[in-house]
Amino acid sequence: MRVAILTHGKFPDRAKTALGILRYGDHEVVALLDRDRAGQRVNDVVSDVQDAPIVDSMADAPDCDALVVGIAPIGGGFDDSWRDDVRTAIEHGCDVVAGLHYFLSDDDEFARLAEECGVDLRDVRNPPDDLTVAEGTAGEVDAQVVLTVGSDCSSGKMTTCYELREAARERGLDAAVVPTGQTGIMISGWGIAIDRVISDFAAGATERLVRQAGNHDILFVEGQGALAHPAYSGVTTAILHGSQPDSLVFCHVAGNEQFGGYPSFDIPPLPEYVELYERMSSSLGGSTVDAGSINTKDLTEQEATVAVTEFGEAIDAPATDPVRHGCDEILDAIL
Amino acid sequence: MRVAILTHGKFPDRAKTALGILRYGDHEVVALLDRDRAGQRVNDVVSDVQDAPIVDSMADAPDCDALVVGIAPIGGGFDDSWRDDVRTAIEHGCDVVAGLHYFLSDDDEFARLAEECGVDLRDVRNPPDDLTVAEGTAGEVDAQVVLTVGSDCSSGKMTTCYELREAARERGLDAAVVPTGQTGIMISGWGIAIDRVISDFAAGATERLVRQAGNHDILFVEGQGALAHPAYSGVTTAILHGSQPDSLVFCHVAGNEQFGGYPSFDIPPLPEYVELYERMSSSLGGSTVDAGSINTKDLTEQEATVAVTEFGEAIDAPATDPVRHGCDEILDAIL
Repeated sequence: MRVAILTHGKFPDRAKTALGILRYGDHEVVALLDRDRAGQRVNDVVSDVQDAPIVDSMADAPDCDALVVGIAPIGGGFDDSWRDDVRTAIEHGCDVVAGLHYFLSDDDEFARLAEECGVDLRDVRNPPDDLTVAEGTAGEVDAQVVLTVGSDCSSGKMTTCYELREAARERGLDAAVVPTGQTGIMISGWGIAIDRVISDFAAGATERLVRQAGNHDILFVEGQGALAHPAYSGVTTAILHGSQPDSLVFCHVAGNEQFGGYPSFDIPPLPEYVELYERMSSSLGGSTVDAGSINTKDLTEQEATVAVTEFGEAIDAPATDPVRHGCDEILDAIL
Repeated sequence: MRVAILTHGKFPDRAKTALGILRYGDHEVVALLDRDRAGQRVNDVVSDVQDAPIVDSMADAPDCDALVVGIAPIGGGFDDSWRDDVRTAIEHGCDVVAGLHYFLSDDDEFARLAEECGVDLRDVRNPPDDLTVAEGTAGEVDAQVVLTVGSDCSSGKMTTCYELREAARERGLDAAVVPTGQTGIMISGWGIAIDRVISDFAAGATERLVRQAGNHDILFVEGQGALAHPAYSGVTTAILHGSQPDSLVFCHVAGNEQFGGYPSFDIPPLPEYVELYERMSSSLGGSTVDAGSINTKDLTEQEATVAVTEFGEAIDAPATDPVRHGCDEILDAIL
């Protein structure tokens, strides 16, 4: 599938959906729409992903099958400055794929235009309507279940899952990712955006995903939010208890000390944070933080080596930067 | 307002909405509909609440303004054996008030009939549509904030809130309850059913309620679920972090050792459970379990005294059964 990805003003650091598709998706990306970087190419900014031209608007993009909204702003709203691009995409016969809380299919103009032009508006954050409460049965699944958890949102939980999947497959294992957020759903083509689910059903939706993934050697469940986060800790808890993991992999961005978007809230000291995850897990089956994943992309090679070592000491478990140094330390620890 | 309350087969132990209204509401209850107890009176079964006749069906109930669905089954579904009563109520010109996940107003037959008969279908679990993520600002409210938490669902969190409100008012304090569930909303006439909110917004909805309640001496926030519950721990976490309480009151039903409806899941040992709540709280402001509330209704007077003492020792805080022995121990501990 040929896609254009909208990231206005947010690429690369605040465009994790776009980055995920560029790095792990099967899609051919024909262009990024980012008015702040028009004229550049993806690889001018990020080197280790699929390359594509960056253009100012949908009007400048090559023909493609779909426009993907590749940003997930806090709160999941639709920015009206994107309206022209979405309109142009629909008029050019492109489907539009988005993972916002605001559903494009609920937008009168887009819904009408999409019908006229015969294209689909796919809101991947729209959950199934037959969800129920958890039964506490995820632990019965015939697979090793590994959950990525983190110190904050955007701490590398999804990236770590996909890197681990590739590394496990290279070792001959039948591995799959269980996607719980919009980017994972866009990459893997299935999943449920747990943060959009009615809170009573969030653990139940996670349990359903784990059971649905089912028969693999190993499942990497994508965690969401963080257990000490001021806004999203409920989602994190529901996924932790709904998935009943065998192992936790703790994810962190080197140097981060406050929650993103919440500058008055400190990230807890990492040893305490690990203990909090393990205590919360202990009430349902119980799992431990067996390994750590740290994002060192803003550090030099030498700084990164130090950061990985210090991080491993802080969480008292083997650690690595999976993108920079590979996944061996994590796989050796959890297998 | 004159109301009938439907509790078929569930009164009193599995009908906490009905019990809450009978005990704390301003409503005149003209009848309970419970086919398993038709012919009895409420006070034959529960002595310390408003009395009312128990009848077989809505056809046998005296005239009234509204039928309230007074049960909250796991999952919040509508039991089709209630359909005749709801239909009869609407045809008799009664509003129907329910706190189910299944919205009566989404039921084609009820919606059509209600329109024909000019009555309202009030689904109190239907949340506002303008909710957002939490900002972490509940702690700024000018009131002491006390959150009831528990070992399980139906562990007395709402009851404790209303008992504490009355006891605090008797001491001359300006006290209010912040309702987070269907029964509290029916009793107090405002609130949001947090378990029905999109999980990303659950902490934000709680924060909004606390700020909306605002200027009182003391706010008693109704907790939901339990931090170690297999299905509802996410809701519990969102309320804990969204309300940023000054004090926690831990609620428990004497003798309960497994989660209700989840017989293979043990309730954690209470000292560990208290520590789990305090650790989860510590990442946002931090509060301690300052008092305990235990439901001893199935015990003799002598057994109850022993249970209260043992419970207080287990949670290492002053404790009482607020319904049986009053709230002084709790108020003295938190004020």
